[in-house]
Formats: sequence, structure tokens, C-alpha cells
Amino acid sequence: MNTPQPDLSAVSAPARLAEAAEGISMEELALAARNHGLPLESLRHDLTPPGLHYLLVHYDIPYLDAEGWRLEISGEVGTPLTLTLDDLRSLPSRTVRVTMECAGNGRAQLTPRPVSQPWLVEAVGTAEWTGVPLRAVLERAGVGPGAVDVVFTGADHGVERGVEQDYQRGLSVTDALGEDVLLAYAMNGAPLPPQHGYPVRLVVPGWYGMAHVKWLREITVSATPFTGFQNTVAYRTRQEPDEPGAPVARIAPRALLVPPGFPDFQSRHRIVRPGPVELTGRAWSGRAPLRGVEVSTDGGATWRPADLEPDHGHRWAWRRWTARWRAEPGSHVLAVRAADAEGTQPETEPWNRGGFANNAVHRVPVTCLSS
Amino acid sequence: MNTPQPDLSAVSAPARLAEAAEGISMEELALAARNHGLPLESLRHDLTPPGLHYLLVHYDIPYLDAEGWRLEISGEVGTPLTLTLDDLRSLPSRTVRVTMECAGNGRAQLTPRPVSQPWLVEAVGTAEWTGVPLRAVLERAGVGPGAVDVVFTGADHGVERGVEQDYQRGLSVTDALGEDVLLAYAMNGAPLPPQHGYPVRLVVPGWYGMAHVKWLREITVSATPFTGFQNTVAYRTRQEPDEPGAPVARIAPRALLVPPGFPDFQSRHRIVRPGPVELTGRAWSGRAPLRGVEVSTDGGATWRPADLEPDHGHRWAWRRWTARWRAEPGSHVLAVRAADAEGTQPETEPWNRGGFANNAVHRVPVTCLSS
Repeated sequence: MNTPQPDLSAVSAPARLAEAAEGISMEELALAARNHGLPLESLRHDLTPPGLHYLLVHYDIPYLDAEGWRLEISGEVGTPLTLTLDDLRSLPSRTVRVTMECAGNGRAQLTPRPVSQPWLVEAVGTAEWTGVPLRAVLERAGVGPGAVDVVFTGADHGVERGVEQDYQRGLSVTDALGEDVLLAYAMNGAPLPPQHGYPVRLVVPGWYGMAHVKWLREITVSATPFTGFQNTVAYRTRQEPDEPGAPVARIAPRALLVPPGFPDFQSRHRIVRPGPVELTGRAWSGRAPLRGVEVSTDGGATWRPADLEPDHGHRWAWRRWTARWRAEPGSHVLAVRAADAEGTQPETEPWNRGGFANNAVHRVPVTCLSS
Repeated sequence: MNTPQPDLSAVSAPARLAEAAEGISMEELALAARNHGLPLESLRHDLTPPGLHYLLVHYDIPYLDAEGWRLEISGEVGTPLTLTLDDLRSLPSRTVRVTMECAGNGRAQLTPRPVSQPWLVEAVGTAEWTGVPLRAVLERAGVGPGAVDVVFTGADHGVERGVEQDYQRGLSVTDALGEDVLLAYAMNGAPLPPQHGYPVRLVVPGWYGMAHVKWLREITVSATPFTGFQNTVAYRTRQEPDEPGAPVARIAPRALLVPPGFPDFQSRHRIVRPGPVELTGRAWSGRAPLRGVEVSTDGGATWRPADLEPDHGHRWAWRRWTARWRAEPGSHVLAVRAADAEGTQPETEPWNRGGFANNAVHRVPVTCLSS
């Protein structure tokens, strides 16, 4: 059973695109079985209950206890700090409602398909995160005048494309000092579940999920730009493998629909009966305030405005939208699209090799029975 | 966009097996994105935290409120009952620790592969369920002398192989009167999460998940054997499509391993360094008490006993096992198998058309680096 001298390159392959006729592989299925999306009917909840919020874990969920947990703050600071969970909890807290979306949401619908966690459209969720503003902790440490980036290190350890690493992301000092950026120790009023970063994670409202470092153990203020794997290799939009690409950052606008009627078990195809059907769902953007949501009941040929609820003071959270539809027997394709101040969701997927920041219009085929 | 007079058969296909070279389809992926398994590192927890316990929802998660919820008990009973949640909560309660496993666990590893929810090995979890013994409620209603089966109806509605239905399962009166069968309203001490049956579900310790009807709304005591879809069509082990098959019932023995070391992101392949490695995991059976657990570090060529913890009074819950291994550089296949009084886990998958009750030995390939 032994082969001599293995190294990481033997078990950790480069990024690739699926072949034209290639179905989802067993490796991709293994990722889909661990990580999970939001069942779309659960868009009805303002706050996503535990277990329904999307989850993406790069390596393993660390098995941590709060007693032994410490957060080290070091680098270009006046006073390095070591904080316990009790230290953090004794500081003034803030609660922010945040819609979080995986940067790879929609990846499995791309052609060609980037081989990675195969999301369809459901990698999203909304929670209320409670914690200490990162700014308050950085102010206590005293950020040096030469500081450029802040680097966050998690306790999850693995290998990715041959690079062994603890999960680590950098954020510019400007972004790190945003007033709603949190060192969060509670989700929807309860301690973080293990899979969402227990005991403490970073929350960066408006950004795709990769920025919200879970199982946070170290914060390093850096005088040089961070060049780690997750910022410079992984989360970039590229058309060609060798180009530097653009960093993935804030969440592009998206609207999703609660699939109406009832499903077929195997295909998840939707069935309704003739008559009035209330269409509803959620829309969000991490880039700029939403300007509106439109629905189509003819596959995108014509569009009309949906009713969009105000944000009720939650600028980083999804907003509910509703529209009416009178279903008639036959096959229909429902669609919904959101617009923010920077633009409207595209009809087709904005392709890149990593399958990031895909925000194509959500379409839901529906069959209306005769009666 | 319209086609006239559609019916359910147009959108709800018969069961089928995948072709030899067929990858996982987008329909199967859509199921894998909604339903989720237990990330295997979470086998470390005695009780599975919310969101890590496996989840299989046949149709949509109903959006129910406890205020309006009622449980109707009728049929062959002396006194039909209508219970509110407060009624249930006012009765003496019982808490039972239960390992629950999906009957389709392991399905995606079968050849040919039955096309359905594509589980690998992780469709399992353990929770403490609190509720009222079903027996106590049936005694209040008074089960008639002609009673044969008890039929449980959930609030989830959908279509499956052309049959529109509320999810519904029957259980023999004898099984229904088991002392640990519960009408459960709490999971790990908190109200049921929506996806696990809020406000009330049935719990039938020792049985595969299909028996534990979620979002319970009706209990009907029947003088004739129940012939509904989920008992007579869906959950049967069959070699040929037309045979009646045997009902899927109690959980066959299984052991799973916490994959040691750390993973590659994409392949989930495991990497360890040379030296001592503690192997650990869980084992369970719903049929009969466990007799032992064995591990192999040479792909099943040789086996040795693992240390198996006692059940600590939880006869329906998994038990922790541990074993030592000294990893040497090279490629290895770890394996673990459990035995109960009725037998040992098989080396290869016990194939049937539905992909049910597969309990083949768990194998984990591991690469040990040179240093």
C-alpha cells in the first residue's frame, strides 16, 4: 500500500475547468455533501435559522473550546494585545444584520464549469451578528502610521493547489476600520455554531463570504500589502490562468425567488394550480443601495416592477420583494432581477475561471396544471 | 411559453439507475445543495450541533407557526383528540438520545447508482429529542382492538414519481407503542429548527430517517395495513423494479472515522505527517447492541479491535471508538467496521434499486508525507 516520498503536489491538484460533457464529479459531490446552501423556501425568514444559512468550509471545522481560545493582535501596532473571549465580551458590543453570500454562488451553472464547490444559486443567508467593532480593538492596539493591510488568520488548516496553509485573508486598513466590521461571537443571539466560526469570526458586511474569516486566532497589521494565497491566488476573477486578475470583494446585486407551489422530489421542478400566486423573495447588494427589483413571468421577455420593502434600517441585509401572478395552465419560466446604483443583474453569467461573483438572473421553471 | 394540459407525469419521472459513465446530474446536485450531511470531523461531538446533523427534506420545509398548529388523532380510537403544542408540553416528557441515519446513506457509491439524493457516507447525526411518548397519547385516545397500523402525516406537500402527496408513513401498532417513540418538540434542548420538523416531529429510535415524520399534523390509527407511497413504493429494497421488495426499517450497523490529519480543499484527500495518529470515530446500530468495532490501516487486509466506549445508558445513540496508528510515509487506506449481534458490516455495498440500507465499510485514503 506504500509509495515512497509523497509530497503535497501528489494529492493537491491545480485549478481546472470541467470538460464539455463532464458531469459533477465525486470530488465535487463530496464538497456539496459537506457544505450546504439555503433551501430556497427558507428565503421567507427575515433571519435565517441555524442550519439553513449557507456554509462553506475550506478545510475542516476546527474543534475549539472557548476557554483556551486567544486572539493575538500584533504587527504594526503600538501595543500588541492578547484577548480572551471574556475580554472581548466585556467591550461594548454591536449587532449588525448581514446578508452573506459565497463568492462562488452560481458556479455550477457556468459553461465551462470551474471545478470547485458546485453551487447552484443558494449559497446565501442572513444573520444578526453580535460582537466588538474591529475598529475599537485596533484603536486599543494603536495602528501604526505605516500600516497598509490587516491580515486575519483562522484556525482551519489545509492544503489548496499544493499550498499548505491556515486560512488567511488580508483587508486594507481603510476597509478594516469600517464601522460595521465586527469580531463576532454571537449569531442570531446565540454563541456561534462550530461551523460558523466558534468562538469568534470576522464579519465584513457587504463582502462575499471569503472575507469573513472564521475561527479567528490572529490579527496582524502589516506595513506591506498582503500577498497570501486567498487574496492573490484564489479569490480573483481571471479569464486566463496566468493573468493577475481582479480581487473578489463586495457582493454584486442579486434577487432570488421562493419557488412557488410544490416540488417534484427528484427534479425539484415546481408545480402550481391555476389562479393567483403570490411571488416573493429577497434581494440584496453589498456594493450600493438597491434601486429596484423586477419580475418576469415569460422567461425574461417582459419585466415589471416588484414591490420592494424598505431596508428597515438594515443596510447590509436582504430586502423582501413581492409581486402577483395569475397562473394559467402550461409551462412558464419565472425570473427576477435586482438593480443597484451600479447596475442590473445580467441575463447570462459573467464567466471567469474561478466562477466568482456570478449574479445572473434567477430563473424558475414552473408547470401550471389544468386544475 | 405555454403548452396545453400538462399533468404531473410530465414533470415527475419514474425511478431510474444512472448509466455507466453518467456523472452526478444537475438534478442530483440540486438535492445535494439543499440537503446536507454531517461533515465527518463533526463526529467528534457527542451531540451534533444544529446545522451539522444530516438533513433530508422530501419536498419543501413548511413555514409553520406553533400558534396555529394542531395534531389530530383519529381513526380506530375510543376518543379522537385534537392537541395544541401547549397541550403536548403539559404532558410528562421524556428525552432520548438518538442517532438518526438516512436510509439512502451511501447511495452515490453504488454501481449502478440509483438516481436520487446522492449521499456518500455522511447522512447521520445524533441529537437529544424531548417530547411526549407516543404511547401516552395513544393511551389517552384509546387504541381500538382492531388497530393494525398507525399512520403519521406531515405538513410537507409534493409529488414523487407522479404521485401527489403529503409525506406520510405507517408504523405497526406494536412498533408505535415502543417506550422511546416520541412526539418530539425539542432538539438538544431547544425548539425544533424549521428543517427538523418544527413544531413537532415523530422520533422512532433505531429506525432510518424516513420513519421520523417531520411537521407532524395527523395521526390515524388504522384497522387495515397502510399501503401509502412511502411504505409500499418508495422505501423498499428491490433487485427488480416490479418485485414488492422488503420494507426498509431499522438501521444496520455502521462505523465512521473522523478523517485524520488535514484535507486538500478540492479533493478532500487527507494528509498526515509521520508518527502516532489517534484514530477515532463513532459506531452504531439500530438493530441490536454493538458487539465491537475493528480498524484496518492496510485497506482491509488485516483488522484489529478498536476501543469501544460503553453506551453510557444511551442505547439508541452512537458510541465513540478509538485506535492508535503509527503513520509512515506513503499512501494508506484506513478502514473501520462495526458488528452487532446480527452481523458485521460488509466489504462491498449491498446493492438494491433504491440504494437503501447500504452499510459498506468506511474507507479513508490517507497520504503520509515524508516529514
